[in-house]
Amino acid sequence: MSDQTLDLAAADAAQWNGPRRSEHPTAVVAMAGAGQLAQMCQQAAVSLGVELRVLAGKSIEPAVAAGARALIGDNSGRNLRALAEGAAVLTFDHEGFDPEMLSQLKAEGVHMAPSPEAVLFAQDKLVARQNLSRLGYPLPPFAVAESIEEFDSFADEHGWPMVAKTPRGGYDGGGVFVLDDRDAAVNLLAGNPGTLILEPLLAIRREFAVQAARSVTGEIALYPVVETIQVDAICHEILVPASLPEEVRFLATEITRRLVEEIGATGMVAVEFFLTDDGVLINELALRPHNSGHWTIEGSITSQFEQHLRAVLGWPLGSTQITAPAVATANILGPDNGVDPSTRAAEMIADPGVHLHLYGKEYRPGRKLGHVTVLAGEIGTAREKTRRALATLEGGQG
Amino acid sequence: MSDQTLDLAAADAAQWNGPRRSEHPTAVVAMAGAGQLAQMCQQAAVSLGVELRVLAGKSIEPAVAAGARALIGDNSGRNLRALAEGAAVLTFDHEGFDPEMLSQLKAEGVHMAPSPEAVLFAQDKLVARQNLSRLGYPLPPFAVAESIEEFDSFADEHGWPMVAKTPRGGYDGGGVFVLDDRDAAVNLLAGNPGTLILEPLLAIRREFAVQAARSVTGEIALYPVVETIQVDAICHEILVPASLPEEVRFLATEITRRLVEEIGATGMVAVEFFLTDDGVLINELALRPHNSGHWTIEGSITSQFEQHLRAVLGWPLGSTQITAPAVATANILGPDNGVDPSTRAAEMIADPGVHLHLYGKEYRPGRKLGHVTVLAGEIGTAREKTRRALATLEGGQG
Repeated sequence: MSDQTLDLAAADAAQWNGPRRSEHPTAVVAMAGAGQLAQMCQQAAVSLGVELRVLAGKSIEPAVAAGARALIGDNSGRNLRALAEGAAVLTFDHEGFDPEMLSQLKAEGVHMAPSPEAVLFAQDKLVARQNLSRLGYPLPPFAVAESIEEFDSFADEHGWPMVAKTPRGGYDGGGVFVLDDRDAAVNLLAGNPGTLILEPLLAIRREFAVQAARSVTGEIALYPVVETIQVDAICHEILVPASLPEEVRFLATEITRRLVEEIGATGMVAVEFFLTDDGVLINELALRPHNSGHWTIEGSITSQFEQHLRAVLGWPLGSTQITAPAVATANILGPDNGVDPSTRAAEMIADPGVHLHLYGKEYRPGRKLGHVTVLAGEIGTAREKTRRALATLEGGQG
Repeated sequence: MSDQTLDLAAADAAQWNGPRRSEHPTAVVAMAGAGQLAQMCQQAAVSLGVELRVLAGKSIEPAVAAGARALIGDNSGRNLRALAEGAAVLTFDHEGFDPEMLSQLKAEGVHMAPSPEAVLFAQDKLVARQNLSRLGYPLPPFAVAESIEEFDSFADEHGWPMVAKTPRGGYDGGGVFVLDDRDAAVNLLAGNPGTLILEPLLAIRREFAVQAARSVTGEIALYPVVETIQVDAICHEILVPASLPEEVRFLATEITRRLVEEIGATGMVAVEFFLTDDGVLINELALRPHNSGHWTIEGSITSQFEQHLRAVLGWPLGSTQITAPAVATANILGPDNGVDPSTRAAEMIADPGVHLHLYGKEYRPGRKLGHVTVLAGEIGTAREKTRRALATLEGGQG
C-alpha cells in the first residue's frame, strides 16, 4: 500500500487528497474528523513540527481547507485503520464513531488516545451517568426509561416537567426533550425512541466548564474554570475566569482532576457543570478539544489544541496559565437575517484587539461559523467588545 | 484553464499540489515563495478565513507542509501569473524575483503588494542607498566601485578596513566582504564581482529594527523597536522592547513611518538600523514579514503575519500593542554537533512558557530551523529561558 493511495482495487476505497507534504515531522498524529477542532489542531501542529492527518467525509471541510493532509472517506474501521497507519497515535475531533469498531481497532493494536473505553463516557450519556454515579460523582437525579410506567415512577418522585435524553448522538440540544406532562411522554414513546435517560428539569443557576489535559504518560494539567452562557442549549459565550464562589471553582477543579484519572482519559477533556440550588452537578463530558476551551488560543500560554497534541503524543504538557486578567470568547452563529458573517470580517477586525477565528464554513442560520476572543483587564470590557464584534459580523452597526 | 491544472499542453507546466480545499474563503492571497514566512502566514490566514496560495520550488517546503495550496514550479513570470490568477493580490515571502519581470506583470495588470518599485528597495541595496540618500535618510557613508581606483579613492577618505557589498542577492551575510587592505580589494576584483557598494567598517554599538505595516489603503501601523543580536551577520536573538535611549527609539520609529510612505511600501516592512558613534543609520529594508518580527506571534496583539495579510488585502490593520512587559525570541540554528533540534522538541517544551515554532526543515549545521519565543515580566528572564531552550534543543542539558 503506497503512501498516497489506499487499496485502489476496491471500488469505494478512500483517497488521500494529495501527496505527502512534510518530509521532516517531529511526529505524525492521525485525527478522525476534519471540523473546526481539527482545523485549530492543524494550526497548532504546524508550530510543533507535527504532521496532522485527518479523516474527512468530503474534500472540503475546515481542517482540509486549513491544510491538514486528508483521507477522504466515511467513518469505517477500514478508513480509521488506514488513517492511523504510520501515525504515532489516532485521536478524534468528534464522538461519532461506532464504539464497538473502536474497540475492535484497539484489539488489533491501533494506538488510540483517548481509548475506546474512555471515549464511551462522551459517546453514551447513560454509560457516563451509570459509571460516574457508581464512582460517587455529583450528578442530577436520573432514571432509565423505556415505558410509560418508568416515566410515571420518576414523576412520582420528581414531578413534571421532566427532561428525557437519548443516550447517544445528542449535540447542541439535539436528542433532548423537555416534557411538560404525561401526555408529552406518551407522545415521545409513540416514536419508539428506545432507551431514554430521565432527569428532573433542573433549576440551573449557572453553567460552567473545566478543561483538563491528561497525557498518555499520566501527567495532568488543569485550566481555569470558565463560565459558559448557553441559549437554547447552544453555547454563546465563554467567560474566563468564571465568576463563581471560590469553593465552587475548587470543587469543580478537583472533580475534574479525579475524573480524568479515574476514567483513564487521555488528551483534552472538557467537563461541563451545572450550578443548581442543590450544588455542583456534572452535566456531560467531551474527550477532545471543546468549544468552551477556544479562549485558550490567545488566553492561555498553551492552547487546548497544542495541549491535546502534547497529551496524545506523551509530550510534556504546557502551562495553562491565563495570559490576561479576563478573556471572553463568543461564538459566531449564522444570523437569521441572511447576512454571512464572513463577508463582514474585514469590517469587524477594525476594532483593535478582537481575535477572529473563522472555520471556512458556508453560512446557514444558526450554524457555528467561527468565534471571536478578546483579552482585557476585566470581563465586562472583554464581553462588551465580543458583543460589538458579533453585532458587526451580523450586519449591524457594531 | 481549470482551477486544478495549468496549461497541461506545455511540457514543463507548473502543477498545483492538489485540488482546491476551501469553498468559502473571505479572500484569496497569492504568495510567491513557500518558506517559513509563508508557513506562518498560512497559520494566520486560516483564522481569518483567507485562502493562501503559494509558489513553491519543490513539493516539500515549509508553507506546503503547513497546508497552503501550492503551485509547484520555478520563479518564472508565467508561474507568478498563474499563481495570481483569481487571487485578490500577489505578495512575496522573499525578494528573489527578477525586478523587470515583476514590472512586466504589473504592466499586464497583476495587482501586487508591495509594488515592484517598492520591492526594489529590498532587492537592490544600491537602488535603496541611492534613493534613500537622495531623500535625506541617515545612511552609512558609501560609494560605488567597479575598479581599484574607486576603492583607493574611498580608502583615502575612510581608510582600511572597509566593507564591499554586492547590490543584489545577499542574505544572512552573503555578498558582504570585509576587506582588510588594498590587496584584499584587488583579489576581490579579480573575481569580476561587478558593481560593488563600499562602506567603512562601522563601529556598531547596537543593531535594532522597526516593523511597520502599510496597507494598500495607506493606513500605517508601527510595532515597538526591537533589538537584534547578530552573530556573524546572522540574527540570533530579538529582544522586545529594545533597551535604547528614548530619543533613538523615537527617531527610528519616525524614520520608519516616513520611509514606508515615501517609498510606497505595502504589506509588512522591516527597517534594520545600526546605532553607531555617529548616531542612527539605516542598514537595510525587507518588504515582507521578517525574522526580527517573529516575536509578534505571541508578543503582540496582531502578529506580523496576520498584519501582512490585512495590509495587502486593504483590510483594517490590527493593534501592534505588546502583550507582555518583555519578549525574547531566539532563532533555532542547526548546531555543529550533528544534533537535529526537532528530535529534542518534546524535551524542550517541558519548560513551561516557551513557545516553539519549527519550520519542518531538514537539519543542516547553521540552517535556520525554527525559533522560540518567551514572554516575561522583564527581558533578562525571557532571554535566560530562550537560551535554556536552545541549549536543550542543541543536545545540552538545558
